[in-house]
Amino acid sequence: MRGLSPRIGALRESPTRKIDELRERLRREKRDVILLSTGQPSIPPPREVREAMAELLKVDSMELYGYTPSQGIYETREAISEDLKKLGGLEVSPEQIVLTAGGQAAMFSTLAVLIEPGDEVVVMDPTYFGYRPLLEYFGAVVKTAGTRLEEGFQPEVEVLKSVVSRRTKAMIIVTPDNPTGRVLREDVARAIAELARDFDFWIVTDEAYKTLIYEGNHVYFYKLAPERTISINTFSKDPAIPGWRLGYVYGPAEVMPKIKLVNEEMVYCPPSFAQRLVALYLLSEARMRYIRDVVEIYRQKRDVAVSALRKYIPEAKFAVPAGSMFIFVDLSRYLNDSESFARDLLEKHGVAVVPGSYFSEYYKAAVRISFVTETPQRIDEGIRRIGEALNA
Amino acid sequence: MRGLSPRIGALRESPTRKIDELRERLRREKRDVILLSTGQPSIPPPREVREAMAELLKVDSMELYGYTPSQGIYETREAISEDLKKLGGLEVSPEQIVLTAGGQAAMFSTLAVLIEPGDEVVVMDPTYFGYRPLLEYFGAVVKTAGTRLEEGFQPEVEVLKSVVSRRTKAMIIVTPDNPTGRVLREDVARAIAELARDFDFWIVTDEAYKTLIYEGNHVYFYKLAPERTISINTFSKDPAIPGWRLGYVYGPAEVMPKIKLVNEEMVYCPPSFAQRLVALYLLSEARMRYIRDVVEIYRQKRDVAVSALRKYIPEAKFAVPAGSMFIFVDLSRYLNDSESFARDLLEKHGVAVVPGSYFSEYYKAAVRISFVTETPQRIDEGIRRIGEALNA
Repeated sequence: MRGLSPRIGALRESPTRKIDELRERLRREKRDVILLSTGQPSIPPPREVREAMAELLKVDSMELYGYTPSQGIYETREAISEDLKKLGGLEVSPEQIVLTAGGQAAMFSTLAVLIEPGDEVVVMDPTYFGYRPLLEYFGAVVKTAGTRLEEGFQPEVEVLKSVVSRRTKAMIIVTPDNPTGRVLREDVARAIAELARDFDFWIVTDEAYKTLIYEGNHVYFYKLAPERTISINTFSKDPAIPGWRLGYVYGPAEVMPKIKLVNEEMVYCPPSFAQRLVALYLLSEARMRYIRDVVEIYRQKRDVAVSALRKYIPEAKFAVPAGSMFIFVDLSRYLNDSESFARDLLEKHGVAVVPGSYFSEYYKAAVRISFVTETPQRIDEGIRRIGEALNA
Repeated sequence: MRGLSPRIGALRESPTRKIDELRERLRREKRDVILLSTGQPSIPPPREVREAMAELLKVDSMELYGYTPSQGIYETREAISEDLKKLGGLEVSPEQIVLTAGGQAAMFSTLAVLIEPGDEVVVMDPTYFGYRPLLEYFGAVVKTAGTRLEEGFQPEVEVLKSVVSRRTKAMIIVTPDNPTGRVLREDVARAIAELARDFDFWIVTDEAYKTLIYEGNHVYFYKLAPERTISINTFSKDPAIPGWRLGYVYGPAEVMPKIKLVNEEMVYCPPSFAQRLVALYLLSEARMRYIRDVVEIYRQKRDVAVSALRKYIPEAKFAVPAGSMFIFVDLSRYLNDSESFARDLLEKHGVAVVPGSYFSEYYKAAVRISFVTETPQRIDEGIRRIGEALNA
């Protein structure tokens, strides 16, 4: 009775991975592609931190190579606890932090712990495409709360109220948002926290971009509803080690041992080399300077992208992103289906973007543009080519 | 309706993790503990490989930090393909290899793809304690085939025949074995392959210790039944980077995309820094020399452990391990319950071992002794203290 589990049917290849494959083919064909598709940072971790890691590699001992506790090295969790205090005034103890093999493992393990088949989970529309396949894999019923470009993609409380019920197990909120760049307003966050208390559901807050904010401030749900907030975090964006796979979850003390257990079954312990680098980074002189510099560079790139959009695609609608790495651009004045457009754009014009249908049931004519990976010149050129393709 | 998923109940803390916690407490109390519990290697990767990695860290680019394909970097998979050819004459293409965040993720993703609730899966008794909780998490019915110390823990074909049926989805075989050090005989492997064909089940072969063999040769099921063999591998033992979390699965071309997808959902991509080191290592001059040296050092340590057992614990029964890192020692002449013995041994005598009940329903009076982590002197001293504790 050989064969495979039918559960696996819920898993689909990540949309950006499909784009990556096409890119890979174009690369082999030696064709230059302007990458406006990926959330990959462009500035490596501070040099002094990398050099300190290089020195450690020369030591002849197993110290750097051995297993770590499955929750993560204590000193690294302590550094994160201190960092959360510095960044947001949060009181999160090292015991409340579970290090994971990246943000994806943070999401997977959190949902594994929360969801049983049939549970309703509310996500925004648009939202990060990583959530739906995981929720379906765990058997959740996905409910969407539409957000509108005209409102800067701020969730509207009346809409949220119409979607939640006593069957709601969790609401997932990404802020700063992927794909829209929206930074959640504090009054909206307070309304969500109140709703969560009224209907007794979990708030899963994805804070991957919490230090990449150009205007406004990050809102920590943990401050508003510590008893019901589970937070997903990653070091893929700050300090820019996406390939090294390190992230973390923090939340109420009683839930964390369960999340630790799932991670132990999945990967045994989080990658140790990345844990060492992150501890060095967060405790270094460079930490605040580095992220300030990165935000300044990304802000300039964002401004280049915004100007280029206004210049080359005057009928494009978008909300200027206040955070994250992305602009979500509605092209409905030009087209209906951004999926075939994105394919053509890559094949014929050498520009990679992610179609809106990967994030939204509604904004199918939109594309997500990343403004961090390429140089300002290439961002401008990429958007010029999008305009050219739209007018072709 | 806040609360947690009941599925999580199947997950228990890994037994070695429980021991780790006790050890951690003793460490804080500044008490010296002789570690005969852990499969942690004692020799870091070749110096030249580590130094090459150190140089890469000094380069100011995102090259070393970016996401990799979720299946793993092509060049690393190519190096593994070449290595499998060198080691065993195997023909496994890079497309048939999926890199994972360690051997644990290799197991988790393989079982996620194979098992649906109610499937019967055969494991040996004793076997590695990592399998049962995963199998239960995925809803499998676990069937055990007892193996006997007197037979050197070689599975007996009549016993296997009495356990398999048309409901058997898979059989899991670890060779060289954890916890017994048994290297599977080729005739037994052939009989298993025939059984697998007759009853049409998957062979899941855990080859974590395939290069750590002191007598005899490793048997590759992939050579005997390529259409139904899925192989679990790790770089935690060779080249000794357990904390860095890198392993791989290889098997039939049609199954691998599914295993890749599960890993993508769990961790997005395998840790890139470890992938780079492994490619450098496998393609280096040092590769074969390093593992030859390691095997020689471990063989000497094994011999020290065997002599010490004979000297200090004359009534202990064990099969001299032909591979892996462990001796499985039956202490039934001295005690009934090795679990409370192991606890006392650690608390009162400062020696950590893993009780047999973690591996076996039958060998509850056994302990697993690792002979790789400590120095020969401390291995001898640790076993002397075990003898002392048994006679106390």
